[in-house]
Amino acid sequence: MAVERPDLGLPPGSLVYVGDRKPTETSLSVIGYDPIGSWIKTADTVEELLSYRNEAGITWINVNGLNDMDSLSKLAKTYCLHNLTLEDILNTEHRPKVEEFEDYLFIIAKAITWNEEKGPEYEQISIVLTKNTVITFQEHPGDCFDTIRKRIEVNAGRIRKMGSDYLAYALLDSMVDDYFKTLDQLGQRLEDFENQAVDETGRHFLKQLQQVKQQVLALRRVIWPLRESIATLQRLETELISEELHPFLKDLYDNILQSAETIEGYRELIVSIMEVNLSSVSNKMNEVMKVLTIISTIFIPLTFVVGVYGMNFKFMPELEHPLGYPITWSVMILIALGMVAFFKRRHWL
Amino acid sequence: MAVERPDLGLPPGSLVYVGDRKPTETSLSVIGYDPIGSWIKTADTVEELLSYRNEAGITWINVNGLNDMDSLSKLAKTYCLHNLTLEDILNTEHRPKVEEFEDYLFIIAKAITWNEEKGPEYEQISIVLTKNTVITFQEHPGDCFDTIRKRIEVNAGRIRKMGSDYLAYALLDSMVDDYFKTLDQLGQRLEDFENQAVDETGRHFLKQLQQVKQQVLALRRVIWPLRESIATLQRLETELISEELHPFLKDLYDNILQSAETIEGYRELIVSIMEVNLSSVSNKMNEVMKVLTIISTIFIPLTFVVGVYGMNFKFMPELEHPLGYPITWSVMILIALGMVAFFKRRHWL
Amino acid sequence: MAVERPDLGLPPGSLVYVGDRKPTETSLSVIGYDPIGSWIKTADTVEELLSYRNEAGITWINVNGLNDMDSLSKLAKTYCLHNLTLEDILNTEHRPKVEEFEDYLFIIAKAITWNEEKGPEYEQISIVLTKNTVITFQEHPGDCFDTIRKRIEVNAGRIRKMGSDYLAYALLDSMVDDYFKTLDQLGQRLEDFENQAVDETGRHFLKQLQQVKQQVLALRRVIWPLRESIATLQRLETELISEELHPFLKDLYDNILQSAETIEGYRELIVSIMEVNLSSVSNKMNEVMKVLTIISTIFIPLTFVVGVYGMNFKFMPELEHPLGYPITWSVMILIALGMVAFFKRRHWL
Amino acid sequence: MAVERPDLGLPPGSLVYVGDRKPTETSLSVIGYDPIGSWIKTADTVEELLSYRNEAGITWINVNGLNDMDSLSKLAKTYCLHNLTLEDILNTEHRPKVEEFEDYLFIIAKAITWNEEKGPEYEQISIVLTKNTVITFQEHPGDCFDTIRKRIEVNAGRIRKMGSDYLAYALLDSMVDDYFKTLDQLGQRLEDFENQAVDETGRHFLKQLQQVKQQVLALRRVIWPLRESIATLQRLETELISEELHPFLKDLYDNILQSAETIEGYRELIVSIMEVNLSSVSNKMNEVMKVLTIISTIFIPLTFVVGVYGMNFKFMPELEHPLGYPITWSVMILIALGMVAFFKRRHWL
Amino acid sequence: MAVERPDLGLPPGSLVYVGDRKPTETSLSVIGYDPIGSWIKTADTVEELLSYRNEAGITWINVNGLNDMDSLSKLAKTYCLHNLTLEDILNTEHRPKVEEFEDYLFIIAKAITWNEEKGPEYEQISIVLTKNTVITFQEHPGDCFDTIRKRIEVNAGRIRKMGSDYLAYALLDSMVDDYFKTLDQLGQRLEDFENQAVDETGRHFLKQLQQVKQQVLALRRVIWPLRESIATLQRLETELISEELHPFLKDLYDNILQSAETIEGYRELIVSIMEVNLSSVSNKMNEVMKVLTIISTIFIPLTFVVGVYGMNFKFMPELEHPLGYPITWSVMILIALGMVAFFKRRHWL
Repeated sequence: MAVERPDLGLPPGSLVYVGDRKPTETSLSVIGYDPIGSWIKTADTVEELLSYRNEAGITWINVNGLNDMDSLSKLAKTYCLHNLTLEDILNTEHRPKVEEFEDYLFIIAKAITWNEEKGPEYEQISIVLTKNTVITFQEHPGDCFDTIRKRIEVNAGRIRKMGSDYLAYALLDSMVDDYFKTLDQLGQRLEDFENQAVDETGRHFLKQLQQVKQQVLALRRVIWPLRESIATLQRLETELISEELHPFLKDLYDNILQSAETIEGYRELIVSIMEVNLSSVSNKMNEVMKVLTIISTIFIPLTFVVGVYGMNFKFMPELEHPLGYPITWSVMILIALGMVAFFKRRHWL
Repeated sequence: MAVERPDLGLPPGSLVYVGDRKPTETSLSVIGYDPIGSWIKTADTVEELLSYRNEAGITWINVNGLNDMDSLSKLAKTYCLHNLTLEDILNTEHRPKVEEFEDYLFIIAKAITWNEEKGPEYEQISIVLTKNTVITFQEHPGDCFDTIRKRIEVNAGRIRKMGSDYLAYALLDSMVDDYFKTLDQLGQRLEDFENQAVDETGRHFLKQLQQVKQQVLALRRVIWPLRESIATLQRLETELISEELHPFLKDLYDNILQSAETIEGYRELIVSIMEVNLSSVSNKMNEVMKVLTIISTIFIPLTFVVGVYGMNFKFMPELEHPLGYPITWSVMILIALGMVAFFKRRHWL
Repeated sequence: MAVERPDLGLPPGSLVYVGDRKPTETSLSVIGYDPIGSWIKTADTVEELLSYRNEAGITWINVNGLNDMDSLSKLAKTYCLHNLTLEDILNTEHRPKVEEFEDYLFIIAKAITWNEEKGPEYEQISIVLTKNTVITFQEHPGDCFDTIRKRIEVNAGRIRKMGSDYLAYALLDSMVDDYFKTLDQLGQRLEDFENQAVDETGRHFLKQLQQVKQQVLALRRVIWPLRESIATLQRLETELISEELHPFLKDLYDNILQSAETIEGYRELIVSIMEVNLSSVSNKMNEVMKVLTIISTIFIPLTFVVGVYGMNFKFMPELEHPLGYPITWSVMILIALGMVAFFKRRHWL
Repeated sequence: MAVERPDLGLPPGSLVYVGDRKPTETSLSVIGYDPIGSWIKTADTVEELLSYRNEAGITWINVNGLNDMDSLSKLAKTYCLHNLTLEDILNTEHRPKVEEFEDYLFIIAKAITWNEEKGPEYEQISIVLTKNTVITFQEHPGDCFDTIRKRIEVNAGRIRKMGSDYLAYALLDSMVDDYFKTLDQLGQRLEDFENQAVDETGRHFLKQLQQVKQQVLALRRVIWPLRESIATLQRLETELISEELHPFLKDLYDNILQSAETIEGYRELIVSIMEVNLSSVSNKMNEVMKVLTIISTIFIPLTFVVGVYGMNFKFMPELEHPLGYPITWSVMILIALGMVAFFKRRHWL
Repeated sequence: MAVERPDLGLPPGSLVYVGDRKPTETSLSVIGYDPIGSWIKTADTVEELLSYRNEAGITWINVNGLNDMDSLSKLAKTYCLHNLTLEDILNTEHRPKVEEFEDYLFIIAKAITWNEEKGPEYEQISIVLTKNTVITFQEHPGDCFDTIRKRIEVNAGRIRKMGSDYLAYALLDSMVDDYFKTLDQLGQRLEDFENQAVDETGRHFLKQLQQVKQQVLALRRVIWPLRESIATLQRLETELISEELHPFLKDLYDNILQSAETIEGYRELIVSIMEVNLSSVSNKMNEVMKVLTIISTIFIPLTFVVGVYGMNFKFMPELEHPLGYPITWSVMILIALGMVAFFKRRHWL
């Protein structure tokens, strides 16, 4: 929960990597394509990278790892990125947003992958969209864009026929698709919790449910700002986004809205599960207490009776009576049956 | 609760059927009408279907089942439907919406039918409204539009005198009418719960109530977006919706608003029922515990007394006294009466 | 709670009476007035009714009971009422609204009367406001407009000097005045509940409170839409509402806003009462349990002591000792006092 | 809580005093001032009052008590007040508002004084602001404007140099200042409650807290509409409010916003106190029950043991053994120690 | 919680210091800089201070301590500050805001420092931004601006190259950076609470958590208005803020938005912790009660049995039987085992 930012106190625009995972080496790759063909290259230096640019078609530069300040600065300089943009790219705790600059659009989003043990894991993806180029910055080399790469390679769908704005959209769309996978996993977990809610009365059920709740809330903090950002994107009047892209943005917005509503549904479900569980725990406890108390209550008057005839008074006529003992047993059995009947009539048994 | 979308990872606009019920065969039917007459035809192929179109009057094409990609694609091509529209039609988990395209309006809504065992069941209805044609897509062959068909056939009301926009409105209106039937069923269930809330203290009452609550929330997630969509429809400046239709749209909006408010009323009622039930369970438990504890408490001092005279001390003057036994009984009865009186004065009995 | 609408499935604009009270016979009356004079007439047929119209001044037609479809249709035809308007008049479950048509304004509001046993009772009042005529539709013959009739008769205030819009306003104003009477009754009930909240621990207190809460919520569902409707009325740019009327509408809006705020205050009060009551019930229970448990706890060690000397061991020196019995008593009294002191010091007694 | 309005059923604009305190006699006073001098006069009749008006400078007419309908009507006539304005002045249950009329602004606000026993007490202050005159209506003669009178008398600050709008502002400002005094008192009460929340487990703590909560909510219902009214005042485009006044209105708005936020803070604090208290009550109860139950549980097995050797079987070898009695004691002490150790290890002691 | 304002009742614009800490002596310092150089001077009098102004470049005047009314008034006069501005500077309880005056912008913000014992401590910082000058008012001499001073001294970043608006921004930015440090501390505390929530069942856990909650809420009341203020600043159309500053303001806004969202996350976390803790307390209590009650319940029937054979009837055949004693033991062991088995089967053990 703690918010750690090593850059606090530094002048705004200072370049320090802010992230909570161990950083990996920076690696650079470039994909060029146009309706006719496509190629992928990896580069060791920014200079090499830039030499691969596709002047005629669309260029997609992907930067994995955010540790090599030199390369990042050079890249930023080449594409005239504002210092604050670079700072935002490095601050991997940034909330999703869309920002318009003179020559480019800057988009921050979160890629979510599902980790069987830890739940959802977040990786910040920064996207810079210029006229013919898309630059993406990832914290770690990963496969979240592999499907896009393959679609470019095999010329699937319309991706090679459209501009850089469609590429940026496709990247966002593939991230949002991944959100549904994570939501699916969370949904299955919640179903398990729902099924156990009546029977599970241990002390840790609620704690685990609360952990899932925190995960749902964390997901919400990522999805809601992205929803706003896509809405902003739709309203932007910029040449960088072509008219043709609007139905796709609308569709993307619909998808993210649906995931946001699923999240709200999960929250309400969690509240339901908690209420059922709390009420079950207390109901079960009540049942235990009731049966136990009833047993006690039946025996307490009987114990009194046997206590009476355990007294050592000299003159107790009952003790001398030959039928005293069997009569006492009969009385006690009658008392016990009477109390059971009384409990039954009151529906306590 | 789980969200499953087999199309995740595919390029946007890929055509895959997304639904959670077993799909049925695709069947096609076409209804043509004008103020003078009407006819219904079923077709085996899209080509046959298209040959039945009513060039002069209004044509209503109904597609049941969403599995025959070929036919759907042909139909989409004929009516210039955007790829995203077709994708939305196939994704039967889509939330209700209204979208304006160049030549047509695209409306997604949910038909709700009441299943005695499972509660409300949802079917996605997609409506494409063009100048003279309405195309509806249903997941399953069903009877939710039978009343409309009959009204066209018997020329009831104004339906045959008006345009395709009125037909689309009539379809939505008949769906919203069905919502009230479902609301009615839910309302009766809630009334049952309300009547049992004070007496029913079992462990499953709350779980069942929570299930109804989830159904109410699911209904809400369908009705609220439709409300927004109808409001959007009212504001749209399009030639596809004639001036004449506006009072009807206003009326439709009123109806859906009323159903939305009924839903909110149900939510508040559910909270009330839960509060009454929880308080009843705990009150009943308290009553049980109180009576039982009182019985214990009366006998505990008496048991002590009889224990005293069960002691085997050599020198206990009371034991020798001829009236020891009856006096002890009198004392014990007095103690018991005293405690009962004490409990009574404190209103614990 | 159930929503029953016999008109479901019928074409929009079908005329069926929708209400949950037994309908009464339709009766017609007409009041004509101008600054100089006024008259009241009752009519058997619509034709007779229309012959009484006040061509020069203002005409107020009142229709009691909504069963005579023929008369209603004729009336609607005469005043060019839209079919949907007539349908709304007949659907007495409609929420309050204001709707503008070409030649008239259509207002739905609810008259509320207080029934000592059942709480608030609702009657739908539909008002059609045209240039010189106001038509009101009531479900039952009632006296909710008697004060207005009297003011017209005795020429009280400005009512005879102003137009039909002022008459419509005066009708709404008298209904809102009645709301305050109902709010007053509910307020008194809540005061009773508030006073009993600490002492009343029975199982039915909360259920009765929940019933009042449901009544408050039902009232809210009537008052809030009316508030919106009056706001709409203020914003309407129509010739039917004169400039002069605006301060009166503003005043009406203030009144209804005040009643809406009173409702919100009631809701908060109900929550307070529930919290106090629940906490009182549990506190009282706790007190009972505490005292009872303390009694048990004091006697349990004593019973152990007397048990010890009830043992039949051959060699128990204490039993032979002449002071054994009184010493045992002293020890037991000391133990009892010690426990009482311990409880006192811990503030459990 | 009850809403009583004796004017219900009367025509709108009827003049009846609506208030819940015993009305006092109406008294009239007039203050005239300009940058050079000032004077205060009291008047018996409206005519006398009007003769004192300061034609050149600013006139402030103050009316104490709202029973003399004649005088009020005359005054209203002189200053062309709308009938509804007069009605609002008399209805002392009116919510704060600002209303613009042709020649004057009409402001309703509430003066709040702190009563040690009953908490906040409300008095409605109506302010009519015309070009050179301010008329204030109070329910009771009081001192809430004394500081303003003194500032006019001694020519403190800028009050005598500015127009009637500044006077109206100064009156509102002095009322809002009083709000902070009341908030201060409520804050101190809440601090007391906060300090007692852990220790105070009586049945009346929560009831008293709920009473303070109701007071806080009542205060809120007065402050929030005033906040809106001041915002309205800032936006009004009227000649009655000079450009110069705007920073002062902004400042007034800031003050009232701060008091509104303090109220919200109080509400959150009350929720916190309740949660702490409820949890403390239940924790304390649990502690009591635990200790008591532990005592019982230790003695129950021991009582069983002594019961065993109180049996009268002929053949019980232990009874004959010379060490039987001390061995039994040792066993019992071991059992007791064992249970204590068990409880300790489970952290129940 | 109490709101104390010694200026209540005084005319608006009266100059009284309103703060809750012991005021310190007023000290004045001035920093002048331009792209070429910078100097820092401290001054004893306002006259001396003003003589140090940097006519060509940017001047930053810092005032520590708000007790020397004379100096403050002189300063205010020199820079034409409105009386209300001066009053707001002195009222250190003011909520954050931005206000535009003719010649200057006035900004109120709160510097937050973390005190290990008391939690967050607030100091009001008032900033007056004019064309070439920034004046800051602090309650106490402190180091919250030391980093800015150093950046000016060593010419770090762009601070010396930009105008007075950038200086004001840099000051706000350094304050917001400090917010994250405080949030970090609070986050760590909440993590501790989260870890203890299941095990910690003492009476003071919840009270301490509530204190942290109050701190979080207080922080919220400071951060939310600042967020609004920065948004206002972004929208202001004033020459005092250059075009160049806008990306920086956007970045500042992002940062404060992130801190606001962190706060909301903390609130939800606190609710989770409370729910887990309350449920744990009650679960633990239930476990205790259950085990204890089970022990009692096993021994109660056994105690009854031994009581039976402690009776002194003359004719009890079992007592004479040579195997009576061992058979009784066997029966009792069977009863005990039977009850344990019964409890086990019901999952109560």
